[in-house]
Amino acid sequence: MRANLSVKADRIAADIDALAAITEPDRPWTRRAFTPMFLKGRAYVEKIFREAGLETRIDAAGNLIGFRKGSGNAEGKSKGVIMLGSHTDTVPNGGRFDGIAGVIAALEVARALKDAGITLQHDLEIADFLAEEVSIFGVSCIGSRGLIGVRPSEWLERQADVEGSRIDLAEGIRQVGGDPSTQVGRTDIKAFLELHIEQGTILESEKIDIGIVGAISGITRVEILVEGRADHAGTTPMGSRYDALAAASCLVLGIEKIATEISHGPSYFAATVGEFSMEPNAANVVPSHVRMLIDARCVDPKVMDDFVVSVASLCEQTAAKRRVTIAEPRRVSNNPPTPMSEMVTDILTVGAARIGATTRPMVSGAGHDAAFLAKVAPAAMIFIASKDGRSHAAEEWSENDDITLGAAVLYEAVLDLDKQ
Amino acid sequence: MRANLSVKADRIAADIDALAAITEPDRPWTRRAFTPMFLKGRAYVEKIFREAGLETRIDAAGNLIGFRKGSGNAEGKSKGVIMLGSHTDTVPNGGRFDGIAGVIAALEVARALKDAGITLQHDLEIADFLAEEVSIFGVSCIGSRGLIGVRPSEWLERQADVEGSRIDLAEGIRQVGGDPSTQVGRTDIKAFLELHIEQGTILESEKIDIGIVGAISGITRVEILVEGRADHAGTTPMGSRYDALAAASCLVLGIEKIATEISHGPSYFAATVGEFSMEPNAANVVPSHVRMLIDARCVDPKVMDDFVVSVASLCEQTAAKRRVTIAEPRRVSNNPPTPMSEMVTDILTVGAARIGATTRPMVSGAGHDAAFLAKVAPAAMIFIASKDGRSHAAEEWSENDDITLGAAVLYEAVLDLDKQ
Repeated sequence: MRANLSVKADRIAADIDALAAITEPDRPWTRRAFTPMFLKGRAYVEKIFREAGLETRIDAAGNLIGFRKGSGNAEGKSKGVIMLGSHTDTVPNGGRFDGIAGVIAALEVARALKDAGITLQHDLEIADFLAEEVSIFGVSCIGSRGLIGVRPSEWLERQADVEGSRIDLAEGIRQVGGDPSTQVGRTDIKAFLELHIEQGTILESEKIDIGIVGAISGITRVEILVEGRADHAGTTPMGSRYDALAAASCLVLGIEKIATEISHGPSYFAATVGEFSMEPNAANVVPSHVRMLIDARCVDPKVMDDFVVSVASLCEQTAAKRRVTIAEPRRVSNNPPTPMSEMVTDILTVGAARIGATTRPMVSGAGHDAAFLAKVAPAAMIFIASKDGRSHAAEEWSENDDITLGAAVLYEAVLDLDKQ
Repeated sequence: MRANLSVKADRIAADIDALAAITEPDRPWTRRAFTPMFLKGRAYVEKIFREAGLETRIDAAGNLIGFRKGSGNAEGKSKGVIMLGSHTDTVPNGGRFDGIAGVIAALEVARALKDAGITLQHDLEIADFLAEEVSIFGVSCIGSRGLIGVRPSEWLERQADVEGSRIDLAEGIRQVGGDPSTQVGRTDIKAFLELHIEQGTILESEKIDIGIVGAISGITRVEILVEGRADHAGTTPMGSRYDALAAASCLVLGIEKIATEISHGPSYFAATVGEFSMEPNAANVVPSHVRMLIDARCVDPKVMDDFVVSVASLCEQTAAKRRVTIAEPRRVSNNPPTPMSEMVTDILTVGAARIGATTRPMVSGAGHDAAFLAKVAPAAMIFIASKDGRSHAAEEWSENDDITLGAAVLYEAVLDLDKQ
């Protein structure tokens, strides 16, 4: 580790280890939003925020905010907020670093500023956003959506079980200290920065320290329905079948081929058949129906459109060749990509170079709180390497030195942003 | 229709139509064993058995038997039983002819004998076997297994809901009039004949009247487990995945190819991936596990063994190519094929020729009650055409003239068997 950094590796490691210990004991690392274990983790985070000299509060959206007042402009009036943050909730069974690394790195920036006796002109906020992961209520990014005022009001009625009690999301937000009756709608954020683990293999394989995220992918979900014919598995000759599973298998391989070809092009692209179910799913019946759902990620809407056209064409060919019916593929959701602020990515790139960290531009295939913050403020992210690309799994791992270097890049960027 | 047949087309049509009307009204044609609708159907069948001059009884295994006494040998002692039969239970939503055609054709033979004033030397029994289809208790051929004394005793504890009450199979057998405490174990059957719909397309496409079934396929079920890796669908590059679904799709198509090639050989062969499930089955996660179950049918155990070896080799190649783990395919069940009696098939062939019906040798891909009767008596089956090969579906259809011609073949065969 570079010895001359303002941020301290040992403090980061200690906090991440302490949060890892706050897990459901039988399935590390589990600290799902709204559960008692999450609130225990939040109590720890609030304690270390305070120890770093931050004023803490839970905002109406349920986010934990650590506040450090800036000197303001010449008249002492606030110049607005530089916000850093991520989340401390996890998916079931996984997430020792996903979100956590970003919150602790952000906190370390505040501690390093305190150590150096630096008062920024801008106010600084460190945020632990509520429920970034798909939560027990079936929805994600609840805190960051709430913070910018776009959390759908009907979500408040969503139900989940907490410790044997059925509650709605409104009650869940109250239980973490928020106020579901109020949308927040922040407009005072000057810039937002988020450090996150890559959850992929690029930085590790290229031995690059920091990914400068230029955009967060859009996510398009496409449903495909294949209809064959349920015939007797014993009596229907091989050549006389209308087998929906065999046709669907052609589609799975065809979709993979199309996606792989597009991914070799200039835009980041990935597509996955993540949901797949079959009827009647009986040993002695030729499969008659298959439903599959494609999850496709891209930063270029034109490329996404081309992908959907190619899949539609694949479906037509497969239906003809396989004598089955395949409905026109249907986009069931279509979230556009989010470009990051070039002003902020430039500052991050310059800051990284100043401390000798190697960087490369990247695209985020995953969604993040930063995608919502980007709607109200100049925002950007940095990635640090994930061992073997694993995430949302117990094996998820990132090296503490990499997280520390990322925190140092955030520190440099905050100093530069403050001068603007 | 040939005008000079001893059996009567109109009586067959009337009975099949009457049974079709005894169906759950919302989902024709449903008359599942052990349900009130089944018992209503049984009451109708018992009535028409009696009208044909048969003595009726429910045996301990729950089969409805119509009995017609023969003259016996020179001393008036019974020469044993010629048994004809099939079943009147159906699968859910399907089965207007499956089983029913065989019972009514068998009954029509008894009626034709009565019309002609013929007393056979042998006793004649017309059987409606209990629960040939996979029943609400999850098992099939309950009556024919019981009749030959091979119904597994542990089956009696199997549970199902009938009209809102939880009962076990023992109680189910009691409710149809059987005695679950007794295994039957018949040894007095001289020959068994069953007419059944083909449930395939061969007779229809070749315009052949009657299939003379030489063997009932063995059924081997092979389980395959594919293990890949659950990675983030958004962040894992296309080339860095261990996608269990894509690997499983290669297997589905490979299995189909192997099965099709074998089916072009001398032995009847069909294989189907009928069960297929995937984990975690979440839109944003690369699939990590697939379980599939192959149902393979063949009359030659050597060909079946070769198939399983080919599938194992396919699995090895696919595992290597796709970087996933595929366990050695496991035979979870292995029912050997059942050859039919050559003596009986010869008699059926001669009988068909005598009345001008065209025949071809066939293999049954489906299991039938005859497979159990064949364990205790010379047994054989004839098939009549299924429209478009459909069965176990509301669209199932066979022409009444074809069923009538089949009944006439049974009639001729019974006369010939009686002389032996």
